[in-house]
Amino acid sequence: MYSEKDLTALKDFYTDQLLNNTVPFWFPRSFDEEHGGFLLMRDADGGLIDDDKAVWIQGRATWMLATLYNTVEQKPEWLEGARLGYEFLNRHCFDSDGQMFFHVTRDGQPIRKRRYFFSETFYVIAAAAYAKASGDEQAAANARRVFGKCIEYATTPGLLSPKFTATRPSKGIGVPMIMMNTAQQLRETIGDIRCDEWISRWITDIERYFVKDDIRCVMEQVASDGSIIDHIDGRTLNPGHAIEGAWFILHEAKYRNNDPHLIDLGCRMLDYMWERGWDKEFGGILYFRDVFDRPVQEYWQDMKFWWPHNETIIATLLAFLMTGKSKYAEWHQLVHEYAYSHFPDKEQGEWFGYLHRDGSIAQTAKGNLFKGPFHLPRQEWYCMKALEIKPGVISKN
Amino acid sequence: MYSEKDLTALKDFYTDQLLNNTVPFWFPRSFDEEHGGFLLMRDADGGLIDDDKAVWIQGRATWMLATLYNTVEQKPEWLEGARLGYEFLNRHCFDSDGQMFFHVTRDGQPIRKRRYFFSETFYVIAAAAYAKASGDEQAAANARRVFGKCIEYATTPGLLSPKFTATRPSKGIGVPMIMMNTAQQLRETIGDIRCDEWISRWITDIERYFVKDDIRCVMEQVASDGSIIDHIDGRTLNPGHAIEGAWFILHEAKYRNNDPHLIDLGCRMLDYMWERGWDKEFGGILYFRDVFDRPVQEYWQDMKFWWPHNETIIATLLAFLMTGKSKYAEWHQLVHEYAYSHFPDKEQGEWFGYLHRDGSIAQTAKGNLFKGPFHLPRQEWYCMKALEIKPGVISKN
Repeated sequence: MYSEKDLTALKDFYTDQLLNNTVPFWFPRSFDEEHGGFLLMRDADGGLIDDDKAVWIQGRATWMLATLYNTVEQKPEWLEGARLGYEFLNRHCFDSDGQMFFHVTRDGQPIRKRRYFFSETFYVIAAAAYAKASGDEQAAANARRVFGKCIEYATTPGLLSPKFTATRPSKGIGVPMIMMNTAQQLRETIGDIRCDEWISRWITDIERYFVKDDIRCVMEQVASDGSIIDHIDGRTLNPGHAIEGAWFILHEAKYRNNDPHLIDLGCRMLDYMWERGWDKEFGGILYFRDVFDRPVQEYWQDMKFWWPHNETIIATLLAFLMTGKSKYAEWHQLVHEYAYSHFPDKEQGEWFGYLHRDGSIAQTAKGNLFKGPFHLPRQEWYCMKALEIKPGVISKN
Repeated sequence: MYSEKDLTALKDFYTDQLLNNTVPFWFPRSFDEEHGGFLLMRDADGGLIDDDKAVWIQGRATWMLATLYNTVEQKPEWLEGARLGYEFLNRHCFDSDGQMFFHVTRDGQPIRKRRYFFSETFYVIAAAAYAKASGDEQAAANARRVFGKCIEYATTPGLLSPKFTATRPSKGIGVPMIMMNTAQQLRETIGDIRCDEWISRWITDIERYFVKDDIRCVMEQVASDGSIIDHIDGRTLNPGHAIEGAWFILHEAKYRNNDPHLIDLGCRMLDYMWERGWDKEFGGILYFRDVFDRPVQEYWQDMKFWWPHNETIIATLLAFLMTGKSKYAEWHQLVHEYAYSHFPDKEQGEWFGYLHRDGSIAQTAKGNLFKGPFHLPRQEWYCMKALEIKPGVISKN
């Protein structure tokens, strides 16, 4: 159980890590003053291993910088960085059909486009946060316009070319999750009247189709009617991802004056996937599990990646702050201690991204096509902010 | 150094493993008498974990069964199995545009098509070996027709929809490698006048563009002019794959009366990638390496997969038999002992597919979308056959 003093110490810890370790690892050295955007693919010592730009991470870094500016301190460096990122996204990351690329060169030539619209969702949160930071009306209009396109992609079957045939229709939890968080960010920066209704719909989707109380599980994908697809891919669970979904829902519960149904839903999701994801032998969150404990095909299934730990630190802390239940404090302490004792590079700052199951470091990159200044600084920022407000609801339990 | 007696013992060992362990794990229980083809996605105990069918593996299993029938013993069960596989491929695995699927349901409905033509290359070797086994003239015609389509795919830019934009053109060693082996199999079963010339062209491509003597390396992909693409993907090496390419070339050298240039080329490729791929700390072949020793992005980069060990066992044995150099006997012994002490399931037969870097088992599947009765039985079969002919060229070295 955490005391008020423990919580204050945690707040100070996350604040210090964020501002004196994580953010300074990345910025300002990653600003690309020549071509715009950020140079984020870096080795342990910060040396550049690739000057390409991952569009997801360009958007996420823009969001992070603008969010720090909006909510922590109006540092000109952060606003300037957000502007660099936002302008690079506008100038180089949209294809002529309006879809965004996934991977571009340093000077913005396209390398790869994917059949998803996650580049677009990260653009929305980047443009919205930048619009709030800068007062740029065009950025606000762009955020709203691309958000509308994301809704269209999410709700119009066949609009994006599919990776699979129609033989075995399935849907993933990723789309409602990321759309919910995109809408939350849009709402909480520049506001948009569509957000509340869409968030409710996506939460209903998640609860109806993906959360399985009978087997205590959150599915990563299901058939159109929500049934489990009993094949390797259909059975594959992503505990860290489902736990990220849990805290998006707890965040919504908080926004809606501690809506008890949403608190219960978020906590159920966390409970189920903690049970399935926490590695009782070595500690840490396993990357994939099979719903029926069969072998998982993805090769890295039992590795420990940085980001599921960031999501679980947020989810367990938020669950504790909103319910006061001691088990969430215990889980938070477990995952926090596992994460901060295994992932950080004590010499050169920030976290390693990829550990073997036993906690040893699998490789040293701090940034690549998928890792950059997002999950870790977002966690430290979110936890710091969540702990700023004295948790009134905490009860003995 | 191996003595004649050692080599006889090795031949007996591979023969015994192949016929009394590996093949009986898979057949006849995997024959799908109801829908045709094979049910190959199996857990350690042989229990089915998925009844879907991976088209690559359906083709490879068909080839393996027909090859056993053609070269080991005319067992009716093997011919009947090959027929089941061949007919399933014909009936269910071609799309209306002539391209093949990658993944189908048990009854042959398509799940996924990919932007490669490897399903087609495995169809060619399956149909060719089946044609030889059965005398089916239509199968021979099909093998030749689809081989022609593979040449068309391999030589006509843009015929298959690309995964990447044209910004940074690259080419992979996979296409010339697999086409060379496909042509070798076609030639050595039913014959085809196109094969020798195309094999020569693909070997020239590999030597000219992918083999880098100055840095002692075989690249997995390069720019159009053969230069190294200094980005994460371009730097990523796949030692087990390059070593597979090395033995395809040594095989060709043997076919061409021990062509000295090809022996030298195959041995150089093996030397370079043994140096880069062999794990000096834990033993075994590492999955990926970076050409400049930077972090590799693919998460499973330091795991030990079954198939690079199969390829390295063949390559080192063949290099020894063709050159008599003791270092190849030493390497063969190292990789043979690592593989046969770490991968086999001593209780239930066959090999586990996926080990952590330290040699511990990462998951228990014997078959899935990528693993089935191919690399291991092919290795045991190929080594058995290579050792049947007394190695006349062995010299003291």
